[in-house]
Amino acid sequence: MRYKCIVEYDGTNFHGFQIQKNLRTVEKVIEDVLEVITKKKTIIYGAGRTDAGVHSYGQVFHFDYDIKIKPNSMKEALNSRLPSDVHIKSVEFVDEEFHARYSAKSKTYKYVIDTNEVDPLYSNYRWYFKYPFDYEKLICASKVFIGEHDFASFTKNHDLENTVRTIYSIDISKDSGVITMLFRGNGFLHNQVRIIVAMMMEVAKGKLEVKDLENIMNACNRKLSPKTAPANGLYLMSVEY
Amino acid sequence: MRYKCIVEYDGTNFHGFQIQKNLRTVEKVIEDVLEVITKKKTIIYGAGRTDAGVHSYGQVFHFDYDIKIKPNSMKEALNSRLPSDVHIKSVEFVDEEFHARYSAKSKTYKYVIDTNEVDPLYSNYRWYFKYPFDYEKLICASKVFIGEHDFASFTKNHDLENTVRTIYSIDISKDSGVITMLFRGNGFLHNQVRIIVAMMMEVAKGKLEVKDLENIMNACNRKLSPKTAPANGLYLMSVEY
Repeated sequence: MRYKCIVEYDGTNFHGFQIQKNLRTVEKVIEDVLEVITKKKTIIYGAGRTDAGVHSYGQVFHFDYDIKIKPNSMKEALNSRLPSDVHIKSVEFVDEEFHARYSAKSKTYKYVIDTNEVDPLYSNYRWYFKYPFDYEKLICASKVFIGEHDFASFTKNHDLENTVRTIYSIDISKDSGVITMLFRGNGFLHNQVRIIVAMMMEVAKGKLEVKDLENIMNACNRKLSPKTAPANGLYLMSVEY
Repeated sequence: MRYKCIVEYDGTNFHGFQIQKNLRTVEKVIEDVLEVITKKKTIIYGAGRTDAGVHSYGQVFHFDYDIKIKPNSMKEALNSRLPSDVHIKSVEFVDEEFHARYSAKSKTYKYVIDTNEVDPLYSNYRWYFKYPFDYEKLICASKVFIGEHDFASFTKNHDLENTVRTIYSIDISKDSGVITMLFRGNGFLHNQVRIIVAMMMEVAKGKLEVKDLENIMNACNRKLSPKTAPANGLYLMSVEY
């Protein structure tokens, strides 16, 4: 049986999703619990990595287990053993062609910026932004990134992989000084959302022009976009199949 | 000069407010920063203790410093050096008769219970309550505690101090499955709010009758109220002078 799960987590106390030796990661925590349930080493396959501090309301993973357990029972078996900063939102059976990573059609990320005075109870969940900026310029800057582009200037990695991605939409809204940005795209490069957010805010602050962003995009050179927004403002909201 | 400060903090990673040797406490973190600012050991006096995991939007402390620094500059000096889970909300000068603890007239605490499915990003900030219960019974149970009573049955400490306190109001509201309780009183004993919340929920669950709560109150015996709601649902909201 192949099980597909949606998992929510508070990224604050994790070194990201993917297993790293001797570090607390979401994958490790879940695999440890699955080993208790299935009584054998059971590997999970996530839809993608999330960095340390990045939160999830919609990360997806799958795993195989030869015994058929009702999805709701599997969910309860997992949740009753998982620590309080990880919660399985849903479990369902999928056929064996389904792969959490390779079957994904698109992903949606949220980034939250708070321009109010710091609330220490939200400090792990928002980017507190202290500088004056122009909201209309921010909206304008976001347009540069929509569509199919080579995002080589907006990723941390510089290996040989294809850096062309499509961003379907960037929806920005503002409510009581809190700015929420929703990014939907066919896939995102390492740190792509956080670099784009930081560079858009440079335009909003008046440090760069929209035209500069276009030039940076065309140059395909990360050195031209040296900023990265903090991980704690970022949420993986959903993976679409 | 006597400075009065209101401090907000996320209690998750603190062993409470008050200094304890070798443990991370709010008082220690603030005094360390004040020592840098004032260039000498400067003790702060809090309005009261909060336990490990309890949050604050309104804890008050005072300290003395012979140099007069504008309140807003002092606030900035503190906030720029404090860790992200502590934030000074306001600083003002008070006269030397003011004492954060002894001048306090009343305190307001909030307790948050969430009856929805667990959201791991809120797990440090709410009591996730999984059992069915009757909201009307909860309201009814709260009436038992309003007014002047000997709360000896509803505190962790059993030393010789006076355990008579007055609760002016308990306001309970419900929104989308989240229950918020506001307790205002002239002072609260150690764990008093958390024990009252737990015992009210016993009535709401149908395990106890309202009459039982009255009997427990009259018995002045903590053994009769052995439950304590989790610290992470509790917030010190304000101290009134």
